[in-house]
Amino acid sequence: MCFLNLFTCREYLCKKKVTFCSGISMEAKSTFFSTATVGHSPVDRRSPFLPTTSLQFGVCCRKLQAGADRPSPAAAPERLPFSRVTPEDVAFFRKILPGRTITDPDLLESNNVDWLKSVRGSSEVLLRPQTTEDVSQILKYCNSRNLAVNPQGGNTGLVGGSVPVYDEIILSTALMNNILTFDSISGILTCQAGCVLENLSLYLEERDYIMPLDLGAKGSCHIGGNVATNAGGLRLLRYGSLRGTVLGLEAVLADGQVLNCLAKLRKDNTGYDLKQLFIGSEGTLGVITAVSILCPRKPKSVNVVFLGCETFEQLLKTFQLCKGMLGEILSAYEFLDSECMRLLNTHLKLPNPISDCPFYVVIETSGSDPTHDGEKLHNFLDEAMTSSLVTDGTVATEDSKIKALWSMRERVTEALTHDGFTYKYDISLPVERIYQLVTDMREHLGDRAKSVVGYGHVGDGNLHLNVTSPTKDPALLAAIEPFVYEWTASCHGSISAEHGLGLKKRNYIYYSKPSQAVALMGNIKAMLDPKGILNPYKTLPDDLK
Amino acid sequence: MCFLNLFTCREYLCKKKVTFCSGISMEAKSTFFSTATVGHSPVDRRSPFLPTTSLQFGVCCRKLQAGADRPSPAAAPERLPFSRVTPEDVAFFRKILPGRTITDPDLLESNNVDWLKSVRGSSEVLLRPQTTEDVSQILKYCNSRNLAVNPQGGNTGLVGGSVPVYDEIILSTALMNNILTFDSISGILTCQAGCVLENLSLYLEERDYIMPLDLGAKGSCHIGGNVATNAGGLRLLRYGSLRGTVLGLEAVLADGQVLNCLAKLRKDNTGYDLKQLFIGSEGTLGVITAVSILCPRKPKSVNVVFLGCETFEQLLKTFQLCKGMLGEILSAYEFLDSECMRLLNTHLKLPNPISDCPFYVVIETSGSDPTHDGEKLHNFLDEAMTSSLVTDGTVATEDSKIKALWSMRERVTEALTHDGFTYKYDISLPVERIYQLVTDMREHLGDRAKSVVGYGHVGDGNLHLNVTSPTKDPALLAAIEPFVYEWTASCHGSISAEHGLGLKKRNYIYYSKPSQAVALMGNIKAMLDPKGILNPYKTLPDDLK
Repeated sequence: MCFLNLFTCREYLCKKKVTFCSGISMEAKSTFFSTATVGHSPVDRRSPFLPTTSLQFGVCCRKLQAGADRPSPAAAPERLPFSRVTPEDVAFFRKILPGRTITDPDLLESNNVDWLKSVRGSSEVLLRPQTTEDVSQILKYCNSRNLAVNPQGGNTGLVGGSVPVYDEIILSTALMNNILTFDSISGILTCQAGCVLENLSLYLEERDYIMPLDLGAKGSCHIGGNVATNAGGLRLLRYGSLRGTVLGLEAVLADGQVLNCLAKLRKDNTGYDLKQLFIGSEGTLGVITAVSILCPRKPKSVNVVFLGCETFEQLLKTFQLCKGMLGEILSAYEFLDSECMRLLNTHLKLPNPISDCPFYVVIETSGSDPTHDGEKLHNFLDEAMTSSLVTDGTVATEDSKIKALWSMRERVTEALTHDGFTYKYDISLPVERIYQLVTDMREHLGDRAKSVVGYGHVGDGNLHLNVTSPTKDPALLAAIEPFVYEWTASCHGSISAEHGLGLKKRNYIYYSKPSQAVALMGNIKAMLDPKGILNPYKTLPDDLK
Repeated sequence: MCFLNLFTCREYLCKKKVTFCSGISMEAKSTFFSTATVGHSPVDRRSPFLPTTSLQFGVCCRKLQAGADRPSPAAAPERLPFSRVTPEDVAFFRKILPGRTITDPDLLESNNVDWLKSVRGSSEVLLRPQTTEDVSQILKYCNSRNLAVNPQGGNTGLVGGSVPVYDEIILSTALMNNILTFDSISGILTCQAGCVLENLSLYLEERDYIMPLDLGAKGSCHIGGNVATNAGGLRLLRYGSLRGTVLGLEAVLADGQVLNCLAKLRKDNTGYDLKQLFIGSEGTLGVITAVSILCPRKPKSVNVVFLGCETFEQLLKTFQLCKGMLGEILSAYEFLDSECMRLLNTHLKLPNPISDCPFYVVIETSGSDPTHDGEKLHNFLDEAMTSSLVTDGTVATEDSKIKALWSMRERVTEALTHDGFTYKYDISLPVERIYQLVTDMREHLGDRAKSVVGYGHVGDGNLHLNVTSPTKDPALLAAIEPFVYEWTASCHGSISAEHGLGLKKRNYIYYSKPSQAVALMGNIKAMLDPKGILNPYKTLPDDLK
């Protein structure tokens, strides 16, 4: 333990601020978090100095799959032969990052565990660079020493990509939180990677702009992490993906080389678009240090409608009608099924704002003219009701009622945590097939599941499928997987719509990508990070390692 | 010549349809084309069997730069040591592409010359595959034989990227023109790469959708070529770049391997986004064979306004006002200066639709409600006039007047061809700097230039800077370059906003990209195309070869 004391950092005073799911009250949040979110039992508190060959993440549900004669594809692979951190290494880091090299295990705790508390690493060193040059020096050193590195933003990922698996050095972007420039004519913002999304949103709203993405985790997540994971979220339907809105970025490669592609231009066709390599590669190809992003104007009017439909087919027809009649002001088209409503009623005591229906829709409009937006919405609702596409509905224009209606969609995740152990899937499908998977899964599982619920982003073809059980149930899991992945693959869907692959889903990649594509990804990894030090065990399947 | 006769293709009956600049009348088009567009003297008609070490492109203006003691960076490099096509090769191609292997030099003529008639190759073989499997077989063979290949779409590029430089085999996508699927709920279209953009637009308009991009060359350009060059065009302001709207693609790699990433999903975070490698890489990394693209709904109302401003600052303030008041219905904000207007009046006899002003703006709105759109536009115009941001203006709502107003912007290129020899630049800049380059260039050149004009896409920060001279003028060129590139680089702009680098601009890449980035591009090229057979001499600078 003297080893431990030697590296206790006394200067580390920054308390990690955690805010998730902004729609949830503080009280609810507390419950939410303490019950380990997806029903997993709490992870063991482990010393990061325990042998790293021991179990490194305690409760990943897929690890518990019974009856499988092959190792669970989600299980952590063997530790790769990276060097281990020595006192000389720590001395080097302290020299270049005085006061920002953390080795106290208590202080490292929150960085070693993901926010679902489902995955745990045992890193002994947390580095908190402030500049790109800091990151460059760190990676140059780690690469030369063959030390593995886990880049970490707000640690809000859902697939175990944001925490170490073994003793990887954690490189946190938390102190890289400066806004660099904002051009109020073009709406182009540049900032360091560690800026918290909500802070950027607040900064922009004062200037009559908004960020092109919005997430439940906005109070904690970093823009660098958003870009590294190609985060989707609530505004994708309207403003498109980060692949279009991110105009430039700066990244540090595994060998410490700084790649400056931080263009602040809407158009630039000079050579290959290297920034795309880093968007969505989950920190495995480089560490994003700064981002340039195109921001839309702040809408002057926002309306939210909550509707009920008798069938999913009607819900899709309503979507079509909505796209035609609301046109350019449509900013969200989300859904939940009656099972979700039951859980909201039962566990959170949230009353149904309309009469009971098999399906519910949340529609949001964002526009520049309140009168016009109101008229468009009225005409759409009139048509939807007249043609019997929807059976009931309510409209909100004031802020508190808008939040209340949105919470019916946003708090489904929370309600699920009270229903039992939850198996969660984030699936992308052709929009007309979305709900068939829920129906088929319900029929497939029969009474083995407690609840089988579906909700998500209809507008993006993104289903959140959740199955609950009173307790962990390996037999149930074996019934769900690989059924869910095979079903998705048969529809040419994606087994990870917006969450990425991280540690947990890396070996399922073949359900959505052909082997040639995966092999090419492996070549790209080998080209950019020949020693494989950047976020190892993530994104790419083990058979490429 | 018996060699030539041996490979004359008698089955080749397809007459190449060429339609450029849809806003230009047939008569105007004819003049436009016969005067070689940018004032270059007509290219020599050369037999493709002439020694390939001779001058391969006759009239690239930068090649004529006087007083330069270094070789012009745009000059064609030496032919690389690829194999030459043998009778056995042609026999192989005839076997796999019966009737679609063209060797008649007359029939090859239009494929060997770019549409500006500024660049010429001397290919002896044109291949017209119909399927991905055809393309795969061709590339597998060419790679094994070390035969260079020039992938060609509609051959409408502006930087010499779409034609061979020496005797590369031309692989045309012209016969790969099938629409594969269209989902009327999601608006996702999949099609083969050789579909002509205008045909896709017509197909979609019948189904109440539009393509997310629109170009002057839409009657000829292929969607595969659009994607391969990351084409910008007139709708980028509203619908974003192809990097966001292209959802998937299929490409054949240099060794013939088919990479199927033809997802029809808005969200898919399963590994690295390989399709981005091919978007904008100008056929140097693979041949795009099919595309999946997200299409917006067809707008129900379109309005166009033509305004005059006293200063460029007022023009930018009008843009700001416009973004705020027109919001979600703004679909274009284009400009031209008074020099452009003078050329339109003088050479095309187009009268100014409003009173004379230093700057003119074309604003387009596209929305879902004609009444609302009209009201928004009225309110905006009222405010713009009241606050003296604009001095005069006219509005069009009916189709013929809309086309007439658009032609004031679209026909500037044509007017320039009548003004003399034209040096053309496609520059991306921070929006507030756009016009400063025109002013500085005018001052810098003094009376050495006949006209120095600026126009382009303000909304995208994209300036088209053009300088004319009575005849080719190497001294004038030496005054323009590298001044224009250095000026652009000093503002962190892009020396190619939307046209790409192709052959002509490949060596200017360092003005917009750091050497580390270019080196990485070279590594990517080497990884995907180790023999360098795909579109050689394009995109990447010679010092990487």
